[in-house]
Amino acid sequence: MTGSGVTYAQGFTAAGVACGIKKKGGLDLAVVKCDVRARAAGIFTRNIVKGHSLRLARKNVRNGYAQLVVINSGCANACLGPRGDADALEMARLAANRFGVRQGDVLPGSTGVIGVPLPLDKIAAGLDEAILSRSGGADAARAIMTTDTVPKEAQADVTIGGRTVRIGGMAKGSGMIHPNMATLISVLTTDAAISVSALRQALREAAAVSYNRISVDGDTSVCDKVLILASGLAGNDVIEPGTEEYARFTAALKDVCIRLAKMLAADGEGATKLLTIQVKNARSARDAHLIASAIAKSPLCKTAAFGNDANWGRLLTAAGYSGARFNPEKVDIWIGSVKVCENGGGLPFDEEAALRELKQREVTYTLDFADGTASDTMWTCDFSLDYVKINADYRT
Amino acid sequence: MTGSGVTYAQGFTAAGVACGIKKKGGLDLAVVKCDVRARAAGIFTRNIVKGHSLRLARKNVRNGYAQLVVINSGCANACLGPRGDADALEMARLAANRFGVRQGDVLPGSTGVIGVPLPLDKIAAGLDEAILSRSGGADAARAIMTTDTVPKEAQADVTIGGRTVRIGGMAKGSGMIHPNMATLISVLTTDAAISVSALRQALREAAAVSYNRISVDGDTSVCDKVLILASGLAGNDVIEPGTEEYARFTAALKDVCIRLAKMLAADGEGATKLLTIQVKNARSARDAHLIASAIAKSPLCKTAAFGNDANWGRLLTAAGYSGARFNPEKVDIWIGSVKVCENGGGLPFDEEAALRELKQREVTYTLDFADGTASDTMWTCDFSLDYVKINADYRT
Repeated sequence: MTGSGVTYAQGFTAAGVACGIKKKGGLDLAVVKCDVRARAAGIFTRNIVKGHSLRLARKNVRNGYAQLVVINSGCANACLGPRGDADALEMARLAANRFGVRQGDVLPGSTGVIGVPLPLDKIAAGLDEAILSRSGGADAARAIMTTDTVPKEAQADVTIGGRTVRIGGMAKGSGMIHPNMATLISVLTTDAAISVSALRQALREAAAVSYNRISVDGDTSVCDKVLILASGLAGNDVIEPGTEEYARFTAALKDVCIRLAKMLAADGEGATKLLTIQVKNARSARDAHLIASAIAKSPLCKTAAFGNDANWGRLLTAAGYSGARFNPEKVDIWIGSVKVCENGGGLPFDEEAALRELKQREVTYTLDFADGTASDTMWTCDFSLDYVKINADYRT
Repeated sequence: MTGSGVTYAQGFTAAGVACGIKKKGGLDLAVVKCDVRARAAGIFTRNIVKGHSLRLARKNVRNGYAQLVVINSGCANACLGPRGDADALEMARLAANRFGVRQGDVLPGSTGVIGVPLPLDKIAAGLDEAILSRSGGADAARAIMTTDTVPKEAQADVTIGGRTVRIGGMAKGSGMIHPNMATLISVLTTDAAISVSALRQALREAAAVSYNRISVDGDTSVCDKVLILASGLAGNDVIEPGTEEYARFTAALKDVCIRLAKMLAADGEGATKLLTIQVKNARSARDAHLIASAIAKSPLCKTAAFGNDANWGRLLTAAGYSGARFNPEKVDIWIGSVKVCENGGGLPFDEEAALRELKQREVTYTLDFADGTASDTMWTCDFSLDYVKINADYRT
């Protein structure tokens, strides 16, 4: 039997239960367990303020092994001083006891409102209630949601040394803007046999082209994290860095992560469409990334997208203040397939055709700088009235 | 007779007329003239893309002298290639001829939609119609408005060497987010006798604590500029850098600029309130500024302010990703006079009292880092539903 998302790969079971942390009800506690002690790696927020659950997960994954992931939504367990650290430890202890794993092999996570203590009694009751199963991936994906409107799961197969290796994952968070509530959390699982160093490197490479390409404010919340567990049950020879097998595995992992990242961007708070910002022929990779990031973060570009306004001047302006070096008189810009700017100057373009492009659920802006060979891609969403409504009274 | 704003100081007349550039009508062409050839200085956008009118103003002010400022709203004269440069020159030529000044002493400016050519026939007709007067400052302040809801003027007196020196000015632009449409333009005038080097330095110092403290995205539009003209008619001894007179003049200029900057922030697109972000006891001036800027730019902090949500976790999160160094466990936070966070952890605070503070037209967030002696202040506004409405269909 095959599950979905985090239970797609062999050796993983999961559950999602409603234990009453979320005020409005709904699933709010996710557990993912590996049948064996798994190789594990994680990437954690660079925010100087770090959630207490996240800090413990970072500590516990440092030795390269883990067996259980437990994540609650509805409460971030952040900015609570020593109590927050103690609560994270207690959450890990409860989960370890309930599911018979070593406490140091538990990776806890929390997402939700900052500054409110974890309701440990509810979490204990929820853990008691949680029944892990191969089909539990879908519930787990729902249980980590905060302002997400749909759960996000993806999976892929890759043949390595004649064996089918499976990779799956789930994610939550807003593609719009991350910090705080819109924490990005992703849990990935695989049955690949892979060394810890290869797993760490593959996760870094995959995150660089996926989760790090939707961080539209360059912001990281205090609880952002991406975890991966590898059960090794696929039976392939252990993957080591720098090998062809490593390349195949990493390509498949990137595929899963990019699909999850695009789902996050498309489900950004209040989003009505997914925006792809494509930068071509920039002077350097750094310049390309600065430009793509500036556009992906610009409220003016994003509100124009919401209004179906072919306002390419805002794209060029954002590129101009991005800090990137380029020659403004060599820039060409397309909205979808409609060229709207050539050599930095406006073209008389078909407004109707541009409007048709802008009304799609997915819109691509392409900027060609004719200044080098570097490229970059970012995903974001438009900035709608609903975004403001959602965020004006999140806490209350 | 004394005017207001740009016609407050001796030697200045102005006018604002409606010449039909703005689709919806209204004043859209401003002229400010000095009776004599004035000492002049300017500060211009650092955006790599620069408007054509702005480029000519920058060129013409380089020698330290100017006599006439002409600014249209409704059209940015940007991203138009060689035609844009030619149009800026023609606008300056028309204004020079009409008002009898040297073409090289004209500082042109344009603000509005990017990529659309200047309607020179309308500008020529508008210049013909414009009658300069000592009371024309108010009309000029209206004629440079784009999405502004109120004109912004300020003035101050300062006694220098027994003489009364007057400083006045006008400004337009959104305190919310600058780039593109929300171009910041300010024109300042004074009757001080002051050397060109002192004038340049005073303008830089004043802009650093005013206009550069409301650039809430760190963004600069392609047409941002601040100009100052000094007629010298106050009869004081010429002010030189490093003197007590220079300090007095600069303090008064800062006062005028800060008042204009706060008006800009308070009139941000869709704004319902002015937010002051006060950072205290940070490790260095750079750290203090990074923190204040990150909060002032954060859509999450700004939507929470709109929703009267005492969500201090968003303030701390923004500080955390700002790039500043600080100890999160030493941070205290106040909303108005209500302390909501101590040593990085939430306090049980009076929600009703916090709500009363948040419902004011002016709200101050104070963050004390207990980590040094550096401080910084930024002004911004909340992020409302109307902001999105205004910007979703600006161009159409």
